[in-house]
Amino acid sequence: MTRREGSEEIDMEATEAQAGRAGTDTASYPSRRSLANAIRILAMDAVEAANSGHPGMPMGMADIAEVLVNDYLRFNPANPHWVDRDRLIVSNGHGCMLQYALLHLTGYDLPLDEIRNFRQLHSATPGHPEYGLTPGVETTTGPLGQGLANAVGFALAEAALAAEFNRDDGAIVDHWTWCFAGDGCLMEGISHEACSLAGHLGLGKLVVFYDDNGISIDGEVAGWFSDDTPARFEAYGWQVVRDVDGHDADAIVAAIETARGDTTRPTLICCRTVIGWGAPNKQGTEGVHGAALGAAEVAAARARLEWSDDTPFAIPTAIYDAWDHRARGTAVETTWRERYERYAHAHPELASEFTRRQEGALPEDWHKHLMRHLHHVQAEAGSDTASRKSSKAMIEFFAPRLPELFGGSADLSGSNGTDWGGHVVIGAPAYRGNYLHYGVREFAMTAMANGLALHGGYIPFTATFLTFSDYARNAVRMAALMGVRQILIYTHDSIGLGEDGPTHQSVEHVSSLRLIPNLNVWRPADDVETIAAWTAAIERADGPSALALSRQDLPHLDRDVPTAENIFRGGYVIHEPAGEPEALIIATGSEVAPAIAAAGDLAARGRAVRVVSMPCLDVFETQDAAYRALVLPDRIRVRVAVEAGVSALWRHYVGPYGRVLGIDRFGESAPGPELYRHFGLTRADIRSAVEALLESETA
Amino acid sequence: MTRREGSEEIDMEATEAQAGRAGTDTASYPSRRSLANAIRILAMDAVEAANSGHPGMPMGMADIAEVLVNDYLRFNPANPHWVDRDRLIVSNGHGCMLQYALLHLTGYDLPLDEIRNFRQLHSATPGHPEYGLTPGVETTTGPLGQGLANAVGFALAEAALAAEFNRDDGAIVDHWTWCFAGDGCLMEGISHEACSLAGHLGLGKLVVFYDDNGISIDGEVAGWFSDDTPARFEAYGWQVVRDVDGHDADAIVAAIETARGDTTRPTLICCRTVIGWGAPNKQGTEGVHGAALGAAEVAAARARLEWSDDTPFAIPTAIYDAWDHRARGTAVETTWRERYERYAHAHPELASEFTRRQEGALPEDWHKHLMRHLHHVQAEAGSDTASRKSSKAMIEFFAPRLPELFGGSADLSGSNGTDWGGHVVIGAPAYRGNYLHYGVREFAMTAMANGLALHGGYIPFTATFLTFSDYARNAVRMAALMGVRQILIYTHDSIGLGEDGPTHQSVEHVSSLRLIPNLNVWRPADDVETIAAWTAAIERADGPSALALSRQDLPHLDRDVPTAENIFRGGYVIHEPAGEPEALIIATGSEVAPAIAAAGDLAARGRAVRVVSMPCLDVFETQDAAYRALVLPDRIRVRVAVEAGVSALWRHYVGPYGRVLGIDRFGESAPGPELYRHFGLTRADIRSAVEALLESETA
Repeated sequence: MTRREGSEEIDMEATEAQAGRAGTDTASYPSRRSLANAIRILAMDAVEAANSGHPGMPMGMADIAEVLVNDYLRFNPANPHWVDRDRLIVSNGHGCMLQYALLHLTGYDLPLDEIRNFRQLHSATPGHPEYGLTPGVETTTGPLGQGLANAVGFALAEAALAAEFNRDDGAIVDHWTWCFAGDGCLMEGISHEACSLAGHLGLGKLVVFYDDNGISIDGEVAGWFSDDTPARFEAYGWQVVRDVDGHDADAIVAAIETARGDTTRPTLICCRTVIGWGAPNKQGTEGVHGAALGAAEVAAARARLEWSDDTPFAIPTAIYDAWDHRARGTAVETTWRERYERYAHAHPELASEFTRRQEGALPEDWHKHLMRHLHHVQAEAGSDTASRKSSKAMIEFFAPRLPELFGGSADLSGSNGTDWGGHVVIGAPAYRGNYLHYGVREFAMTAMANGLALHGGYIPFTATFLTFSDYARNAVRMAALMGVRQILIYTHDSIGLGEDGPTHQSVEHVSSLRLIPNLNVWRPADDVETIAAWTAAIERADGPSALALSRQDLPHLDRDVPTAENIFRGGYVIHEPAGEPEALIIATGSEVAPAIAAAGDLAARGRAVRVVSMPCLDVFETQDAAYRALVLPDRIRVRVAVEAGVSALWRHYVGPYGRVLGIDRFGESAPGPELYRHFGLTRADIRSAVEALLESETA
Repeated sequence: MTRREGSEEIDMEATEAQAGRAGTDTASYPSRRSLANAIRILAMDAVEAANSGHPGMPMGMADIAEVLVNDYLRFNPANPHWVDRDRLIVSNGHGCMLQYALLHLTGYDLPLDEIRNFRQLHSATPGHPEYGLTPGVETTTGPLGQGLANAVGFALAEAALAAEFNRDDGAIVDHWTWCFAGDGCLMEGISHEACSLAGHLGLGKLVVFYDDNGISIDGEVAGWFSDDTPARFEAYGWQVVRDVDGHDADAIVAAIETARGDTTRPTLICCRTVIGWGAPNKQGTEGVHGAALGAAEVAAARARLEWSDDTPFAIPTAIYDAWDHRARGTAVETTWRERYERYAHAHPELASEFTRRQEGALPEDWHKHLMRHLHHVQAEAGSDTASRKSSKAMIEFFAPRLPELFGGSADLSGSNGTDWGGHVVIGAPAYRGNYLHYGVREFAMTAMANGLALHGGYIPFTATFLTFSDYARNAVRMAALMGVRQILIYTHDSIGLGEDGPTHQSVEHVSSLRLIPNLNVWRPADDVETIAAWTAAIERADGPSALALSRQDLPHLDRDVPTAENIFRGGYVIHEPAGEPEALIIATGSEVAPAIAAAGDLAARGRAVRVVSMPCLDVFETQDAAYRALVLPDRIRVRVAVEAGVSALWRHYVGPYGRVLGIDRFGESAPGPELYRHFGLTRADIRSAVEALLESETA
């Protein structure tokens, strides 16, 4: 059975729906236009009530949405988490009132009070769609272009899961990814990266509706955006449906049929629309994009739309009834559940694995297995190696037990150490695999991986050089904001990479990533800390983790069992002197070993110096005060922090009597060890810094 | 006279050069191939000596570079700063040895010892090209795609300056922008943004050579990059020369002629090349991209290239002589100088203005003029207004005196307040103007503005919402690394923007930008601080400045004359209590006014509290210790810092007894004032925080 055939029951349902609405305007059944107008009314009124928001897109795309949702979209309002639902991504997220109206009208748990409360504190209807806050919202959008890249990730997840789990006697993964995108999304660079890759991968069950309304915030886009967009997407290998009247339901139906007719290529449907359609004096202008229409224009729009009720938010019962998808939703999910039951009967192990992965649960004994490994490497198998290589070794170790791991790199597979032995590259038409060559596309990679994680079934990790995390920064932020489990492998951290020079040496990046809320940034000091970082990252289900890894070798460090387990606390005492410590050194990553060596030198000179390894400041800060005080006691006032990066975040930890050895300027092109000397970050420099502080303290 | 005609003498020179080399392989004149091989030899040997670097691109593009540089590129090795030189941008900057070889061979001040010192500390030949370090390097490249966007900025600067300064009797601005780009550059999203805009603008004197070698680091790009690149660029409105054999000089000449034949569209020349051409066992594979070839392969390449001398770095005199462009360079610049002298005679004021702008000097009496304005607004014309509006008012004030100001916004002109009264939008074929609608293209905007600034003649400012600085982050970093004068206008800072919610509320961005070395980040508290921030930004010739501006109104604050002048110190006492201060509040931007109000409330309760406004931490940190201690005396231990963003950077300033009122999580969608209450950043919250500390201090 082809995947296309698996969608049979949708087609039937779509046909029924179309039949039901044929010859609109009957007394018994509202016209398509009036159904679309309900979206317009809710969008207008909600923006008016909030005196803030974006009416233009919902009013412009209402007719498209009406056709898509009523005739094609397969979903169940009673169960927004049904795993085989179609995904609808609103990449032009400022048009969120379109989505809220759809969710409300079709019967999701989004009552009218929430619509009335649009953009108010603690409402389920924030100013841009937020994943986790509103049932039916698949991803957080607003930062333009990223929803489109998320959608490519969703479609990839569907294709890969289908390839892995579907069997000839049962296609349990068989759904479509639909995406709305505006001019802004298509101007953004990420649209190039994501759509080029989607075309290459031939993701045929991805359909993007381009809201070609000719307007962006500065006015008519013709003044700054004159791409031949259809030709551009054809150059990516997409099927393009040109010149669709986005206010003509029949034309939209025909375009969607064309899209569904080719499952070997993603489809771009270019819809000519009028922004703010229905607002007689403002439609078609930038004035309708991002501000309330005002009472007069709302009234005029009601008249133009022939909307009978002047009461804000009032929707006639017949329209509510026609939009109500609850019964249909239950039916469509039930059909799938029956199919799934047959599948589970025939393939019980596959089915249980499918369920486990959809729930995001880790394999049984996972933690125990990893901890055994950590202790084994600590005590027996440790070696002096670059942390990027330790990372690869760790992937080699756990990947066979974690089939949901989905790796990839932005064209640095070998350098990042992401191409472990068991990696299987995905490429059309062979979607069975666990690895993607993303190409030099850091931003799309990270946003696509957000889509992969949000879809469910995968734990994605992505990789590039730490410096180029900049290129993807807002997608990293979005992962953190959504609480998505993505693991970001950033190798070649800091000056240790050497000759590639300041463009490639990330002096500010580790600290700058630490500032993103809900992102855990790990900078492991050796093979064992790398194992712990990976373990913590995979076990962290509610947010992303970044691993900053070295290009150069790092010595394997000694630890006893409790010390090794303390790595998970983000910061711990890795070296304690014989006597009561009179000073301490805080270090991370490649600077921990020279810090320990410096403490040894100081011991030889009669100085008792503790060394604290701080692989993850974010996690350390969540430890209770007692533990933190144990590691960094107030009484030890002589403190040196050392990290091959900007010093600002460490100044607090060393306190008024301390000193930070860092790099508050850009790097240089030279061999790594020479740069450590140049920037004063060697064992001798650390020793001198502590000594100088101890002397001034006693002076 | 058209601009094309202005290039007459180049064409003649090109023709001569071609003639001189027709029927190569004569004893008297080295063949084109042997000239190109000199590049290959130097690149191979330099990478070998460093045991690090990228031989593949220089060996692959050597033939293209030979034709371009010897036959077309107009430059003077003795004067790398000659204003009307052609610009050559190597966007695939890992191939820097190509550029260093060219600079060395043609006679720039880059002796062979520098080539031998490739990638060593303090050499002029770093691992990626660095602006300011190597004569003839126009911009720093390495982070892929950005050089291409820089090149678009260079070409735009040329077109705009030509439109402004050229006269019928004298074209003093008339040069070409040539750019080398690889697969990586074209995969990056920024290539879409920049090339879409270049096509829209019809920048016909921009020519990009696409090094289509089919290889990137992960291997054959066919596995992840299957765009029809020529079709893609045609969709942008470019002239595309397809299928050029990048190792056939005649084909390259023909392609360049085609490019030069159409000055209404930028041209992409698609060159099929073999990466590492000449290394018999490694060419055409990813193995030759980024590592030394090894002694055996270097020897084999020498044999394959029929290079007679086995001594590393040895170039025959005849080849040196043929490459030597010093005489030709002097001649071509002299021709231009004579033209310029005639122009200066006919248009003395224009000529002197042209010179001033090329030198980056500000107009006479500039500082005095701005300071008068600052004092006038402080004492008489101040108003309670959003700092984004104060910023616009400031532009209105100074722009008439600063014709080199070149503004623009990523589709947020009205919101960012960048569309001042005197702005003139640039669009083909009318290049006379000072403003660009960049469209929703933050990354290309910022990188293009780097190109504008590097070209000379302009001081660019660019604008978007602060949150979307993320999209451009690496271009901001590049501006800082290069020391480029670009002013980054980032409005809608923090939660004050209200309902747009967490995707648009930048809690971490101000602090995260502060971490970029050599970037000055200003967060002004009112109209006067905004004037100071703009003044400092424009007067800062050696680096970028970012202004974080509010959407919401901020009260105009009282200051006496010395206090107002202290704004330029980055931090200063804005409110001093009647008695000796027992506590202090540090605040920035929108939080300064509530901090002062809180201090007033505390005074009414008998508490003497100082308020420090800290609009630019970067500048404050450069003040001498005495000044810093005057503002933040050690003896005041009760300290509260308040900023509507992440707290990490402030913890050091409040010390062990202080407290930071910040936001260490993502924002929320709600009206701004409500969010200030929600996040505990109101006047009352500040007052309570200080009171609580004072009480615990005395307890």
